[in-house]
Amino acid sequence: MSFETTATIASFGGKLLKLAHQAKSTSCLMKLNLYLPPSASSSKPAPVLFYLAGLTCTGDNGAEKGFFQAKASEKGIAVVYPDTSPRGLNIAGEDDSYDFGSGAGFYVDATKEPYSKGYKMQSYITDELPKALFAEFKELDSSRVSITGHSMGGHGALTLFLKNPGMFKSVSAFAPITNPVNCPWGQKAFAGYFGEEEKSKWSEHDATELLPKYPDETDILIDVGTGDNFYKQGQLLPENFEKAAKSAGKGVKVRYQDGYDHSYFFISTFAGDHVEHAAKYLLA
Amino acid sequence: MSFETTATIASFGGKLLKLAHQAKSTSCLMKLNLYLPPSASSSKPAPVLFYLAGLTCTGDNGAEKGFFQAKASEKGIAVVYPDTSPRGLNIAGEDDSYDFGSGAGFYVDATKEPYSKGYKMQSYITDELPKALFAEFKELDSSRVSITGHSMGGHGALTLFLKNPGMFKSVSAFAPITNPVNCPWGQKAFAGYFGEEEKSKWSEHDATELLPKYPDETDILIDVGTGDNFYKQGQLLPENFEKAAKSAGKGVKVRYQDGYDHSYFFISTFAGDHVEHAAKYLLA
Repeated sequence: MSFETTATIASFGGKLLKLAHQAKSTSCLMKLNLYLPPSASSSKPAPVLFYLAGLTCTGDNGAEKGFFQAKASEKGIAVVYPDTSPRGLNIAGEDDSYDFGSGAGFYVDATKEPYSKGYKMQSYITDELPKALFAEFKELDSSRVSITGHSMGGHGALTLFLKNPGMFKSVSAFAPITNPVNCPWGQKAFAGYFGEEEKSKWSEHDATELLPKYPDETDILIDVGTGDNFYKQGQLLPENFEKAAKSAGKGVKVRYQDGYDHSYFFISTFAGDHVEHAAKYLLA
Repeated sequence: MSFETTATIASFGGKLLKLAHQAKSTSCLMKLNLYLPPSASSSKPAPVLFYLAGLTCTGDNGAEKGFFQAKASEKGIAVVYPDTSPRGLNIAGEDDSYDFGSGAGFYVDATKEPYSKGYKMQSYITDELPKALFAEFKELDSSRVSITGHSMGGHGALTLFLKNPGMFKSVSAFAPITNPVNCPWGQKAFAGYFGEEEKSKWSEHDATELLPKYPDETDILIDVGTGDNFYKQGQLLPENFEKAAKSAGKGVKVRYQDGYDHSYFFISTFAGDHVEHAAKYLLA
């Protein structure tokens, strides 16, 4: 058993499992939540939606406040809520900022010392975690996986989808950082994880740069609140992503939601729509 | 303006207002959340559902994790999320226990010193708060009000409904303390708020004692999880309430939900049903 199940909680007719496992890619114990809808069984495995959380969050925020379970239960979709970074690697400065280090892994594989030690969230999310889950939970269908996320996790969802054609059936995002090479959060993170001198690498992890190179059509749903302070401050830049989509002829729908902020009140309001978006592909 | 609005947050098409006001009954600043559904306006005021939270909670827990807004938005019902006690009265011992004092007002008017000073949550919830809300928010319909609550707040909802015939159109509860005179939580609270020597008073605040005296028919919905540790420990005693209902010929439906615990994962799963229950009476 690679996972320890620390709690099993009834939720919307299914089960929310609180899991922990020693991860090689991140060199530490990783916690996460896994929601199994009532319909999931080893004879009828459920498709899977990964929800990547944003800065400062853990796998708990989405499970407690996102209300993905309501629609996921109805549609028969499992939801994976991973953590947002390694924890407790004892790297100097790791816990100093809310937007870098702990809680801020940005879903990349760091190449710069000292973060190259365990800040390998790209490998963790796209390789180690799904392999471990599919090996252990026969209620999950490894052939039907979609991804979504919020803010930094929206960046993660978009880039992991675009970098790995065929891995995910669909992608959507809530208030994603879509052009990190051009916003303060992204610049700080990429400088720390890749180095200032490796700027050519940065664009490999930028959704706006990646989108035109994606080999297939896309149908990407994005919600952004017009009252979102991080949107107003230019951390999200969905207009740049839309422009890139238009130039490249890619399908991207950005819905500007009147007055919504960056919080889980925003996410919970539209969580059902994003599960529906995934369901269109997962249940096709 | 008796309320200060410290934040206005978009949620499920409506608005969640974070409010604060100086309350006379509790002798302190009281915070709360008010959800206004998208349909609410001064020309078409919305009926109101009070949600009373449980031990250790504030008005934030239900608003963030209860998932009431989803169905309340759909039905056009406003939701009030009050705090669970006065705060900061500087009574010695007030913050020492999770189940007495701060966060544990039990929705009664304390008569014993020193808690008689401001622990007047019954007056606050049934009189001062609704009067203040209806005076200020013309989007609320004072003639259509229902009540629900969780655990200690379930006790509050049941007893305030039963003590005030006609005040509320309906009542329901999640894992309520239904027979506080016979459980450790209730005994501790009533001893502290009324005194050991005033045991005759205790039954005036016990739903199981009050139910047979209620002058009208009832239609009370209660959900209790069979995996709820506080249920197993005899803190909730819904069987006693059911027995009293049967003897008195009152309508009480207790649904024992298989495997559910005492958490907001339980509440959020059934929140829609409780809003529907209130809607049956509020929108009749």
